[in-house]
Amino acid sequence: MRKLLLLSNSVLHGSGYLEYAKDYVIEFFSKNGVKEILFVPYANPFSQEKYTEKVRSELNKWGYIVKGLNEADDPHSAINQAQCIFIGGGNTFLLLKLLQEKQLIEAIRNRVLNDGIPYMGSSAGTNVATVSISTTNDMPIVHCQSLEALSLVPFNINPHYLDSDPTSRHMGETRETRISEYHALTGTPPVLGLREGSFLHVRGDVATLGGLSAARLFVRGKPCEEHPVGSDLSFLFNLVDSA
Amino acid sequence: MRKLLLLSNSVLHGSGYLEYAKDYVIEFFSKNGVKEILFVPYANPFSQEKYTEKVRSELNKWGYIVKGLNEADDPHSAINQAQCIFIGGGNTFLLLKLLQEKQLIEAIRNRVLNDGIPYMGSSAGTNVATVSISTTNDMPIVHCQSLEALSLVPFNINPHYLDSDPTSRHMGETRETRISEYHALTGTPPVLGLREGSFLHVRGDVATLGGLSAARLFVRGKPCEEHPVGSDLSFLFNLVDSA
Repeated sequence: MRKLLLLSNSVLHGSGYLEYAKDYVIEFFSKNGVKEILFVPYANPFSQEKYTEKVRSELNKWGYIVKGLNEADDPHSAINQAQCIFIGGGNTFLLLKLLQEKQLIEAIRNRVLNDGIPYMGSSAGTNVATVSISTTNDMPIVHCQSLEALSLVPFNINPHYLDSDPTSRHMGETRETRISEYHALTGTPPVLGLREGSFLHVRGDVATLGGLSAARLFVRGKPCEEHPVGSDLSFLFNLVDSA
Repeated sequence: MRKLLLLSNSVLHGSGYLEYAKDYVIEFFSKNGVKEILFVPYANPFSQEKYTEKVRSELNKWGYIVKGLNEADDPHSAINQAQCIFIGGGNTFLLLKLLQEKQLIEAIRNRVLNDGIPYMGSSAGTNVATVSISTTNDMPIVHCQSLEALSLVPFNINPHYLDSDPTSRHMGETRETRISEYHALTGTPPVLGLREGSFLHVRGDVATLGGLSAARLFVRGKPCEEHPVGSDLSFLFNLVDSA
């Protein structure tokens, strides 16, 4: 019984940390009886300590206890005892590499998919919740063993999804072009473009789009589609690449 | 005797393929007696054949013969016989993966650094000419054996370098933040941010910035610097990471 809250981003322009999603986050935690959160700061290349401190100070205000995975003597046992896991944003490659090196992929997957503990991700933490990090926006500052991620859902997400700006003179590939390059390859899963301020809420095989903006869905070999806030996206659990 | 022309991009807004750099490209080829170009279309996930055809049709108009590495029965012997190598843009991960799989990294490096044949790259083709592809803007649509690239120069380049937009409400990392995340890691080489319409011309250990825009240089542990068009950037060959 999967319980996921996959946020596109943590900070919305002009608002505080997780502020835009505060009501949803609190509801997600409350419904699942969460009092204590295990925070994973591995995506931060500057200071895991400071990152955990920052998140702790914010979520303390909302009434939650935050433990940092960086503070655990034994990360495996911390994960096995966690009431809830929250993986924050930063660099997706660094995050995945550390999860792989510390052999935490299967442990987290098991707690979330088999034990049913709630998982929250934002940005890079949302990327690693999907099939692979192939649709991250980040630079490959480190080399991962593979691009395969937690596979808590059978599709990919592109967080911070950004529409093309028709007035731009910049010729670098648009986000849509980049995703189409991914889908040029056979066997690639659907990609949900989550705009900032949006999130996917998953309970079992039921997925609902929440937040402030519609999402853009890319399925290999098909035209892309807009899905408004509130859409039931559960069909994503049943899509199989036909190409 | 290294001879490199490393272009940020191939197409500038409102102009044709390589048009903005035409005079420099022709001068680069002429000075080095190039009549025939071996084009590497591996970065294109859609059709290597069509990509080579497009580049051939453009460069034919300028008087050059273009052979595609995709058309060669034996890529190794094509590289060993090449008068000049041009690697075009597209997806940097796909490009590097194919060069690695076909074991062409050392072959190209040897032709360029030891035999002194001219090398031209644009976008992804510029990324792979550097130490690693860690500062590409592309999505990791495939997994490479490593991120190490041709190392024709001892630093990295970020092509299509884009300044932060102070009016943007988008909260995804800016290009500068992404490069600073790379430089949070010890031992990372300098990164030259090449804006669109710019290129680095290298002869031996002499590097000059050409084109239309200044470049932004990032060195680990130091404030970033702007270097105007025409700057001598040869000092990049002598910078050693002190951190």
